[in-house]
Amino acid sequence: MSKKAVLLLSGGLDSATVCAIAKAEGYDVYALSFRYGQRHHIELQAAAKIAAVMGVCAHKIAEIDLRLFGGSALTDDIAVPKHGSVEAIGQGIPVTYVPARNTIFLSFALAYAEVLEAYDIFIGINAVDFSGYPDCRPEFIRAFEETANLATAYGTGKRIRIHTPLIRLSKAEIIKKGLALGVDYRLTISCYDPSPAGQPCGMCDSCLLRAKGFEENGMRDPAEGK
Amino acid sequence: MSKKAVLLLSGGLDSATVCAIAKAEGYDVYALSFRYGQRHHIELQAAAKIAAVMGVCAHKIAEIDLRLFGGSALTDDIAVPKHGSVEAIGQGIPVTYVPARNTIFLSFALAYAEVLEAYDIFIGINAVDFSGYPDCRPEFIRAFEETANLATAYGTGKRIRIHTPLIRLSKAEIIKKGLALGVDYRLTISCYDPSPAGQPCGMCDSCLLRAKGFEENGMRDPAEGK
Repeated sequence: MSKKAVLLLSGGLDSATVCAIAKAEGYDVYALSFRYGQRHHIELQAAAKIAAVMGVCAHKIAEIDLRLFGGSALTDDIAVPKHGSVEAIGQGIPVTYVPARNTIFLSFALAYAEVLEAYDIFIGINAVDFSGYPDCRPEFIRAFEETANLATAYGTGKRIRIHTPLIRLSKAEIIKKGLALGVDYRLTISCYDPSPAGQPCGMCDSCLLRAKGFEENGMRDPAEGK
Repeated sequence: MSKKAVLLLSGGLDSATVCAIAKAEGYDVYALSFRYGQRHHIELQAAAKIAAVMGVCAHKIAEIDLRLFGGSALTDDIAVPKHGSVEAIGQGIPVTYVPARNTIFLSFALAYAEVLEAYDIFIGINAVDFSGYPDCRPEFIRAFEETANLATAYGTGKRIRIHTPLIRLSKAEIIKKGLALGVDYRLTISCYDPSPAGQPCGMCDSCLLRAKGFEENGMRDPAEGK
């Protein structure tokens, strides 16, 4: 019998790579994305393309407007910082942090998994080349996994697992792994603040980390000048 | 300085009681309700009345349509069981269980708390006169609290606390406490399957447990025949 997994799919480079990893591990992938009021909602178009090209079993988009609470540059009228270089990315938690976002995303993934009778959830979080978000740390994931196992009705003795295959990789290592698995990074978009037509700004943390990752692989970003 | 708390407010008897408890403990209450595709969405009208009468600082309603996943009699085309008597309420987890609902609700409460800089979240879950939902158990709440403290950006040394003042009370004890605090139970609705006009069915688990609670206090449900 095939194994089902729920994948949190943003449309970015990381979750596309995780999709390839889950498939390579033999999972039937059920992708879940969110329209949460993000200014870069164009990533949902990328997510739909990735889902189609990579052959997931289903792709659901949950509508959860986090502008209800605000408090982040990604969902509120707060400017996205343009640091201009990776070195200039600050310490501490930046204004692009969305309060409790990964807790919310994982909760929805858990609901989907429970309905599917899936025991595996994949998320492309990363604690190396990242922006310092607290809900990207390994200890957060372990705590959520524990919560998930107490929250649900399974009672089968099987445990729910939260898979974070990228958590200790650099952006360059993530890209290298994805390329080896045949990920088409032209389909992905990482920018926090793209133009209405979907052109990346090239200056936000997410753009800078992405560019560095391709550079360290000795290549140009294949999505550039698409 | 006043203390802020986020309250999960459903419009039912339990969360109205918790609202009174939080206020009695000196909190400024910020209420949060959900339109999640529940068949008993009329409870949101009750929630709005409770919020207004009990003087909360704000009342937000998050729109999160859990019909996206289905899998519950409360959000899907599955009949709500009508056991007819409290004794007939089955063991095990009933079909009114909504997968991961409390995990999702608490995640949103956490987001709201973080934006408000509140450290206290109140939820009216109960593990005595309840339907056997796994996400009403004390061990689930403790695990979520741990996750919440790892998920967020506070870093102030203060801990987020999930308050569950009803968790070990019977329905009769909850009502007794609420009456002592002046809760107007006419404002509340507990039914899982009310008529379009908001009349409780009188036969679902939630109606049965409510009726028993008032009976044990030697009184009629004040919401009856409203």
